[in-house]
Amino acid sequence: MSRRLHSIPEYIAGIRAGNRVVLGQAITLVESARPEHQALAQEIIGQLLVAGSSASRSVNRPDDSVVPQNLTPKSVPGTQDNPQTTRIAITGAPGVGKSTFIEALGMYLVEQGEKVAVLAIDPTSSISKGSILGDKTRMERLSASDLAFIRPSPSGESLGGVARKTRETILLVEAAGYDTVLIETVGVGQSEIAVHSMTDVFLLLLLPGAGDELQGIKRGIVEMADILAVNKSDGDRVKSANQARAYYLNATHLLPPKDSGWTPRVLACSSQENVGISELWNTVKEYKNLTLANGFFMENRRRQAHYWLQEALDAGLKSAFFGDPAVQARLAELEPEVLAGRMSPFAAAAKVLGAFERREA
Amino acid sequence: MSRRLHSIPEYIAGIRAGNRVVLGQAITLVESARPEHQALAQEIIGQLLVAGSSASRSVNRPDDSVVPQNLTPKSVPGTQDNPQTTRIAITGAPGVGKSTFIEALGMYLVEQGEKVAVLAIDPTSSISKGSILGDKTRMERLSASDLAFIRPSPSGESLGGVARKTRETILLVEAAGYDTVLIETVGVGQSEIAVHSMTDVFLLLLLPGAGDELQGIKRGIVEMADILAVNKSDGDRVKSANQARAYYLNATHLLPPKDSGWTPRVLACSSQENVGISELWNTVKEYKNLTLANGFFMENRRRQAHYWLQEALDAGLKSAFFGDPAVQARLAELEPEVLAGRMSPFAAAAKVLGAFERREA
Repeated sequence: MSRRLHSIPEYIAGIRAGNRVVLGQAITLVESARPEHQALAQEIIGQLLVAGSSASRSVNRPDDSVVPQNLTPKSVPGTQDNPQTTRIAITGAPGVGKSTFIEALGMYLVEQGEKVAVLAIDPTSSISKGSILGDKTRMERLSASDLAFIRPSPSGESLGGVARKTRETILLVEAAGYDTVLIETVGVGQSEIAVHSMTDVFLLLLLPGAGDELQGIKRGIVEMADILAVNKSDGDRVKSANQARAYYLNATHLLPPKDSGWTPRVLACSSQENVGISELWNTVKEYKNLTLANGFFMENRRRQAHYWLQEALDAGLKSAFFGDPAVQARLAELEPEVLAGRMSPFAAAAKVLGAFERREA
Repeated sequence: MSRRLHSIPEYIAGIRAGNRVVLGQAITLVESARPEHQALAQEIIGQLLVAGSSASRSVNRPDDSVVPQNLTPKSVPGTQDNPQTTRIAITGAPGVGKSTFIEALGMYLVEQGEKVAVLAIDPTSSISKGSILGDKTRMERLSASDLAFIRPSPSGESLGGVARKTRETILLVEAAGYDTVLIETVGVGQSEIAVHSMTDVFLLLLLPGAGDELQGIKRGIVEMADILAVNKSDGDRVKSANQARAYYLNATHLLPPKDSGWTPRVLACSSQENVGISELWNTVKEYKNLTLANGFFMENRRRQAHYWLQEALDAGLKSAFFGDPAVQARLAELEPEVLAGRMSPFAAAAKVLGAFERREA
């Protein structure tokens, strides 16, 4: 980053006041590869989580309007894993119209005075230079709204890195008062699994027509979905949209019951004609009310936090190990022996691990 | 182990002489959880790999008969990843008749003077007390042969642990002159993936009839197979066996070409009537000749060695980390904070990793 860094209290105050420039700068720290930026980002997130309270959340809406909070109960005092916020995965095969759908849903929410953040997980963005969401003109109306915050996918070498950065960014945008976070995936690779590990509700968009193969939907994705919505249900596509709805209604009935106690719903909508969007949002609210009441909502957040702790430990441990000069030297010496079959992989591993144990801390 | 341990030279000499009692004792060391047994096992395997030579291989056949070695070229001097040996995965759904098939194939080989070892990967064996192969009466004739060595699956808490022990045992039985190693899986869970990572050729047994679902075959298993054999092709099952063969012949034609350059074959056999066993063995030989000639055979072994090195490093690193008292203390303190949402998983991970870095080596 070329621009001057703020002090930590400046970041905290700026984010909690809903200052979008400061929020964007903090996210840039999260996305930075430089260790000093990473440390600063961790400090900011840490202080926001500890210092934040439900009282601070209502004042940082830019328009100071009183927004009815009938969707969710107030946050539990003393914890900042706030059930007031809703993290929504939005997935679907390329061409299903995710951007126009997000614009339609986002506009519906901001028109009711809700603050909405739109994030993305796109491990291909470093190759395609951020094709997804990189161009805000794809969500022209939403990006012009004071209540919306749109951030392109972080770039990174691996899905793991990209996903981790998005997970941290969720904490920042929530601290800035964005209570609804929409997280888009590109619909290729393993990004749906990553987004599933950081969201409260999983929305799968479908095309009119029928059958997973026609839809380009990978195995396992339908099983993850809480809400399926056949998009582009307009004009002469209404009939085939209904066919798709019937097909997936049947498919979801065949799936085993979910831990959440929720039975997946299959809806139809048209982002273009703005049809079915409010019904969809009501379904999200229904899902949330059910899972808050039966305890799954917070239990799921705890599970996700546990998962990300394990992931971060694993990544950090490997990075410390393979970055260690003694390990690198011993591995360079022994790996050829293993590959030639002159040494057992397990004996070599024991020696390399020994080099790590004896290193200078 | 209650019995007295041998000295390392005694183990080496015993194994290289094909002494099955000593071989069994060495495998017990591999399977032991005690660190001193593990260290001894590693030392034995290490010395066998380095000291072994192709000259030593022909003398340790118990009957000293001259066995034609037309199947494979002599081992490359200076390496003990010996292309003379053949590691064969034998998989298939429960009820397909793996044990009777292994007995039929094993008897066919020992009748030609080949030494055959039969191992297994069964992560359920610790629960079921070694149902698979545990009872040698399931292979009564083969277990009575001087040329056969049958060892039940190691038990262990995880598939990873069981697989690792089997992978090490392969090195021991090969050092004892067992040039053909058959490795059976239980056909449930992920054991096929594990066996695929340590074998040269992957054999999938099928039942007469048709369709993956009827056969209870998991996704991805057919894709791994080099040879598919419809077992129990006898009596009034010959017709439905041929149906299954046609079905899988078609299925394999739809698969992408394999790295090995080999086109999967679909055969029919009857373990009970001893039909199709020699054809099957000829197909294994064809596979081996092709992949030795095009370089895939040894390349695949190198890839597998690399995989197991990475696995062993990963397992050892995690064990050192999570076994560290400073890590345990810090994790016990911070994990509740993460689960309650008061601390970011990434900040907590950084602190726990810091505790590991600063520990007493």
